[in-house]
Amino acid sequence: MPIDTTHDPALRSWVDSANASDSDFPVQNLPFGVFLRGGAPRLGVAIGDRILDLVAARDAGCLEGITADLASALGAPRLNALFALGRPALCSLRGRLSALLRADTPEGARAQREPSLLVDRVGATLQLPTVIGDYTDFYASIDHATNVGSMFRPDNPLLPNYKHLPIGYHGRASSVVVSGTDVRRPHGQTSAAPAGPPSWGPSARMDYELEVGAIIGTGNTLGSRIPLAEAEAHIAGLVLVNDWSARDLQTWEYQPLGPFLAKNFATSISPWVVTLDALEPFRVPRRARAAEDPALLPYLVHESDVARGAFGITLEVWLRSAHMRAAGVPAVRLSQGEFARMYWTLAQMVAHHSSNGCDLRPGDLLASGTVSGPTRDARGCLLELAWRGTEPVALPGGEQRSFLADGDEVIVRGWCEATGRRRIGFGECRGTVLAAQA
Amino acid sequence: MPIDTTHDPALRSWVDSANASDSDFPVQNLPFGVFLRGGAPRLGVAIGDRILDLVAARDAGCLEGITADLASALGAPRLNALFALGRPALCSLRGRLSALLRADTPEGARAQREPSLLVDRVGATLQLPTVIGDYTDFYASIDHATNVGSMFRPDNPLLPNYKHLPIGYHGRASSVVVSGTDVRRPHGQTSAAPAGPPSWGPSARMDYELEVGAIIGTGNTLGSRIPLAEAEAHIAGLVLVNDWSARDLQTWEYQPLGPFLAKNFATSISPWVVTLDALEPFRVPRRARAAEDPALLPYLVHESDVARGAFGITLEVWLRSAHMRAAGVPAVRLSQGEFARMYWTLAQMVAHHSSNGCDLRPGDLLASGTVSGPTRDARGCLLELAWRGTEPVALPGGEQRSFLADGDEVIVRGWCEATGRRRIGFGECRGTVLAAQA
Repeated sequence: MPIDTTHDPALRSWVDSANASDSDFPVQNLPFGVFLRGGAPRLGVAIGDRILDLVAARDAGCLEGITADLASALGAPRLNALFALGRPALCSLRGRLSALLRADTPEGARAQREPSLLVDRVGATLQLPTVIGDYTDFYASIDHATNVGSMFRPDNPLLPNYKHLPIGYHGRASSVVVSGTDVRRPHGQTSAAPAGPPSWGPSARMDYELEVGAIIGTGNTLGSRIPLAEAEAHIAGLVLVNDWSARDLQTWEYQPLGPFLAKNFATSISPWVVTLDALEPFRVPRRARAAEDPALLPYLVHESDVARGAFGITLEVWLRSAHMRAAGVPAVRLSQGEFARMYWTLAQMVAHHSSNGCDLRPGDLLASGTVSGPTRDARGCLLELAWRGTEPVALPGGEQRSFLADGDEVIVRGWCEATGRRRIGFGECRGTVLAAQA
Repeated sequence: MPIDTTHDPALRSWVDSANASDSDFPVQNLPFGVFLRGGAPRLGVAIGDRILDLVAARDAGCLEGITADLASALGAPRLNALFALGRPALCSLRGRLSALLRADTPEGARAQREPSLLVDRVGATLQLPTVIGDYTDFYASIDHATNVGSMFRPDNPLLPNYKHLPIGYHGRASSVVVSGTDVRRPHGQTSAAPAGPPSWGPSARMDYELEVGAIIGTGNTLGSRIPLAEAEAHIAGLVLVNDWSARDLQTWEYQPLGPFLAKNFATSISPWVVTLDALEPFRVPRRARAAEDPALLPYLVHESDVARGAFGITLEVWLRSAHMRAAGVPAVRLSQGEFARMYWTLAQMVAHHSSNGCDLRPGDLLASGTVSGPTRDARGCLLELAWRGTEPVALPGGEQRSFLADGDEVIVRGWCEATGRRRIGFGECRGTVLAAQA
C-alpha cells in the first residue's frame, strides 16, 4: 500500500482551480458529498470548482483494486453505506482518490483524459450527504451556555450538570435540509409574560445558530457503548450546521421537556463532509479544564494527548439582507469563532451519547451546539450577538438586526489553517429566510 | 364498491381462532404488521392466532383489482409505502381483506383453500412495522404531568404552558424496538444532590411508561401545516408503546434541554398497527376542558363533534418478576387506564407538531406520553405508582417494587370494547429487563 501523502502541502491537482490558495477544496481535502447527475443522486468528491463523480471514476476503471464493499457503496444514493465501512476503508479510498486527482501521478495523468469524471461544482444540485436516521444537538460551548443561561435564568446561568456531562437533546431528522434550501419563518405560540396567555403568529425572534456537525461512520449496536478512546473512529467527518431557532417559541414551550417547535422547522447543513483524515493536520490543543472545574467521571476523561484533542476550525457567520442584495452590497461578517474553544470534544459527545447503550447509526448527525467565544465578535447566534435585542447589530445601509428579517440570507463558513499546511475548507452552509405562510 | 361491513359485530372469519370472544384480532380488527418468512420481512395482517401473508394473498390472485400502488406497496419490507398511500387506500384494502377472511363470502371460501396464505402468529418473528424516521414523545396526560411535576417541582407541578399546547419532545428513533426485545439496564450519571457531584453506574431507578403511539400515514411537506380537521387523515393507526425510562439519569440530566440518555436506550412498541378505521366504532367523548381552563388558540380547537373526539382504549400494565417466573406465578396487573382521559387528542398533537411547518413522514411515531388517570390504580409508570419509592408496589411472593428489577418482564395490553360491538385489541407490548453490562 502506498504511503498516504494526501497531507503534503506541496501537492497540486491537475484540476487547476483546486490549486488556488483560497480554494476550500484542494487535493488535500477531498470531502464527500451527493449531487444530481441525470436527475439521480451520485456520490462525489469536491475538487476545486469541480466534483469528481465517484461512479464515473469507478466505471471508467480508475479505481480498480478497491474492495467489493467499497465499489458497491459508491453506487448508493447517499453516503451511509460508504461511511459504514469505517475510517480505514474511507482512508484507503481517499488515498486512491488523491492519486487520481494529483498532477504528479500516472493515475492522475490517465484520469485527466477522462472528461466524464468531472462535473461543474458551482452549477451542481447538491443533496443531503446521508440519510440522517437521528439528529442530536449538543450544547458544548460553555460561552454560549453561559450567555444564553444568563438571559433565561439570570440567577442560575450555568446549571450544576453542565461541567459533568455534554448536555444534548434529540432534534428533528426530517427537517434537516442541505445548504441553499430556503427556510420559511415558522408560526407558533409565544407569550410576553412567563405565565401566558400565549398568542399565535409568525415568530418575531427567528435566529441562526452556528454549529459544527459530526457525521457518524460505523455505528454501535443497541446496548453497547463506544469508549472515549474509540469515539473518533466512529466519526466519518464534519459538516457546518445552522440550527435555525425561533427564540420566542422556545421561551414559551421549552419547559419541562426541552426545545421542540422552536427548532424542528429547519436545520441546514453544508453538503460536503470533510473527513477526519483531512482534518488530521489541524489538530490543536483542546480547551483545558479550569483548576476549579470538577473532576470528570472516567468514561469522559481523555487519555490521549491533550495537545491534539481538538480540531482547529475557524467559523464565520455572514449575513446579507434583501436590501443589501437589491443595492448590490455584499454580505457582511457578523462573527468569527473557534471550534477548539468548545468545552466538550466531539469524542466526548460520542462516548456520552452511547454511554447508556444508545445506538448510533451510519449517517447520523451529532451537532455541537452553538459555537461561541468569550468576546462579542465570537458570539455564534443573534440572540447573543444582539444580547436579546438590547445591542442590535448594524448592517450596511442603516439596517439593524436583533433577530432575522424576511429575506435575510445567512452564510456559515469554516476552514482550517496551520503553519506549513495547505488550507482546507468546508465550503458554505447557506439559507435565506422566507416570509411566513399566510 | 361494496359497502364496508367490517364493523358488523356479527361477522365471523373462517379462521376459527379469530371468532373467540377474547381474541384481540377478529375480522373486525385486521391490524397491519411485518413478520419474517423465509428470513425476509413480509407484510401481514393479524387474524386470530394466524397472520395473513399479504404478498402471498396478492400473488395467489386473492387481491385482484387493487390499484398498482397498493399492489406494489404490499411487496415492501415495511409498512411505510402502504401507509403513505393514505387512509382511503388503506380503507379500501381493509375492505378487500375483510371479504377474504370472512366466512360468508365467495372470496373467503376461495382463500380458505389456499393454505399458503396463513402463517402461525404465535411462532412468528415480528419486526418493527415501519421504518421510523422520527419518534416524538408527547406529555398529554394531565394526571401524569401533575403527578410527576409535583415530584420534580413541588412548588410548581403544572407549568403555565401545559394547558395551552401539547408539550412534546423528540425521542430517539434508532432505539425503538419491537415487542419481545429484551432491554438492557442502562448505565449513566446520577446524583443524589441536585448540585452534584454525580456518580456513574447502572440506573437504580429504571421504569416503564405506558403510552399509545400514532403511526403517521401520509405526511406533509416541510413548511406546510396539517390543520386540526385533517389531522386524523394523516394517522394510519395506533400501537402500544413502553417508553422505558431511567428516572435517576433523567433527574440529573434533563435541565435545560430535556430528557436524553434517560430515555434513548430503548422504546418498545407493539408489532400490530390497529388502523383508525378499525377504531372508528370505539370513539368516545373526549375529555372536556374544565371551566377554569384557558381558551385554546384556534389552531387547536376541535370543530367536530366533542362526543366522538377520543378513542376508548383500555390500557393495562402487567409485571412478572424473575422470581414469579421461576415459581410459575403468572404476571400481575399493576394498573389499568383509559386513553380517552388524555388532556390532548392525537389530532391536536399532529396539528401542533406541524403548526410550525415541521414535516411528518409516513411511518413516523408520535407517542402520547404516559397514560395516567386520577386514581392510584390508573398510574401509568412505577414512578407514579410507587410515588417516587415512598409507596412500593407489592408483588406475589413478598417482593416489592419501587422501580424495575433485573429480570422483570413488563407487558402492556390494550383493547376496545363497546356495547353492540365486537371487541378488538392491540395484542401486547412486552419487554424483559436485562442486567446492566459489566
